[in-house]
Amino acid sequence: MPSNTQILLARRPQGAPVPEDFQLTETAIPEPGEGEVLVRHRFLSLDPYQRGRMDDAKSYARPVALGAVMECSAVGQVAASRDGRFKEGDWVLGGYGWQTYSVRPAKALIAIDPKEAPPSTALGVLGMPGLTAWVGLEDIGQPKEGETVVVSAASGAVGQVVGQLARIRGARAIGIAGGPAKCAFVKDTLGFDAAIDHRAPLDPALDAACPDGVDVYWENVGGAVQAAVFPRFRDFGRMVMCGMIAQYNTATGAAATGAPPGPNLGPVVRKRLRIQGFIVNDTGWQRYGRFRAEMLGHMAAGRMQWREDVAKGLANAPAAFIGMLEGRNFGKQVVALD
Amino acid sequence: MPSNTQILLARRPQGAPVPEDFQLTETAIPEPGEGEVLVRHRFLSLDPYQRGRMDDAKSYARPVALGAVMECSAVGQVAASRDGRFKEGDWVLGGYGWQTYSVRPAKALIAIDPKEAPPSTALGVLGMPGLTAWVGLEDIGQPKEGETVVVSAASGAVGQVVGQLARIRGARAIGIAGGPAKCAFVKDTLGFDAAIDHRAPLDPALDAACPDGVDVYWENVGGAVQAAVFPRFRDFGRMVMCGMIAQYNTATGAAATGAPPGPNLGPVVRKRLRIQGFIVNDTGWQRYGRFRAEMLGHMAAGRMQWREDVAKGLANAPAAFIGMLEGRNFGKQVVALD
Repeated sequence: MPSNTQILLARRPQGAPVPEDFQLTETAIPEPGEGEVLVRHRFLSLDPYQRGRMDDAKSYARPVALGAVMECSAVGQVAASRDGRFKEGDWVLGGYGWQTYSVRPAKALIAIDPKEAPPSTALGVLGMPGLTAWVGLEDIGQPKEGETVVVSAASGAVGQVVGQLARIRGARAIGIAGGPAKCAFVKDTLGFDAAIDHRAPLDPALDAACPDGVDVYWENVGGAVQAAVFPRFRDFGRMVMCGMIAQYNTATGAAATGAPPGPNLGPVVRKRLRIQGFIVNDTGWQRYGRFRAEMLGHMAAGRMQWREDVAKGLANAPAAFIGMLEGRNFGKQVVALD
Repeated sequence: MPSNTQILLARRPQGAPVPEDFQLTETAIPEPGEGEVLVRHRFLSLDPYQRGRMDDAKSYARPVALGAVMECSAVGQVAASRDGRFKEGDWVLGGYGWQTYSVRPAKALIAIDPKEAPPSTALGVLGMPGLTAWVGLEDIGQPKEGETVVVSAASGAVGQVVGQLARIRGARAIGIAGGPAKCAFVKDTLGFDAAIDHRAPLDPALDAACPDGVDVYWENVGGAVQAAVFPRFRDFGRMVMCGMIAQYNTATGAAATGAPPGPNLGPVVRKRLRIQGFIVNDTGWQRYGRFRAEMLGHMAAGRMQWREDVAKGLANAPAAFIGMLEGRNFGKQVVALD
């Protein structure tokens, strides 16, 4: 008899998560109530924000409780429906958790057409990371023709889309990534104007790629990359912040008081900079239709490439997650379930 | 025979300016050309930004050349006019420099009606500092009814106006100032909801005055005050930056690479903060008419108080300026000339 396999938060990590922080378990498959749908997960989305949910700290979302299933978003197929909007076999976005099944309110699900794009893209280029890129550029980055946009974690789920959208809007896109393979992908496949390996000295590479300075910096990482880019802003530069992966293991939530210092803010006045953070869930999904339509157009025209890093099987999710926080993933990290 | 008395930049300061960095000199009164006006200065404006002009560093404005007259804005009376718009005796804003006379293009002058308000207010509450407060709240701070606005250097030229405008817009205004006399002025005369002495421990005072956190922080100072306020932002907080006087002697222009570190920017994401700098001259004067009309209304209705710190005579300008950078002024610093 089939069961629901789950990965629970076994204990709160001290710094970087380790395998013992997770626990695999089997439980009964839940039954949908009236208006609910049972989703059989096919792809789980692993995203850096999930590290924050493992801490018992005040943030924009609640922490995962100890012993509860790890949080994520999932794409899957309807296994049983008690709502007229969905029938068995339908593909949906909106499953929940590091597990093989979830019961969800039908109204929380978004129907996916697998003929439009591979279903896993609903977790990446057409999902939350892509929407994050689109919203952050629309609301904060606002790249103009001829401006220079620097993107850290450029081969990652959000960074990929940021740079390609910046180019579509007429800007130059400079990607920062770790290692030659990712840099080659950023430049050759994604078509950024230049790619910089953050494992080599950053200053000369930024000098060469951004001789006139930086108009928009899409900040995904923090740390040394932020310190190298910050002094290069041109007047009226914008720094778009949706997360800093270099800090996730050391400085989330309340623990941020022990975080490393940031840049002196003197240039913010002198150069009239704008530094702004956002969370895509605040207002992003209200614009999902517009985003998806634009992105499908770019994908059909060959203007939007993407890459996924696919771990196989739920049992491999913890290792994939730990690796992602260390930058070992190459592209949007998902877990494929049978 | 009358002459033009001037104070020149004798040498570039190392850190805090000292009297020897300035030189008093006498020169001939200049003659206005066609379309120009000779202004006899009556009040000079001393402002922190002038410290930046003493450094030979890249910034939003050119440095004062060695041996050139120190930069400032002045209010005065027309002594000779070669333009139809002005006649002898008219009061004008737009004189230039630490000197007793200047020749200016008529189109660079703004006529002042001394019956509307004392002429020196054109350098303070009705001038650049007041306009800075008004523009920064309109464009960035945008205080809403019931929000908490914290203002550093609250008894200063800009801070005075920020807090009073915030209250007029329905927000709570918390002022930070140095010493009991300034705090009493901020609370009792300006009518802020609370005043905090930054010479006493800041954390308990901020806990008491801002129990629900800070929605808008008007940053005038940097340093320890910034570090104490920054962690207190509520979600969607705004930090308005038009200068950081604590850094002016150590971290202007190119020397900013040696500036002290700033706050870790992790909360910018988590709380969706916006940190933005501006320079009033970029777009502020295009809105001067609207600003002046609103402010005159507040002044007539008794809703807008102001205080000036008046140094007497050009020879005392350097000491007044040095004192202002140390926070020894009490209110908008001007120099009255005979």
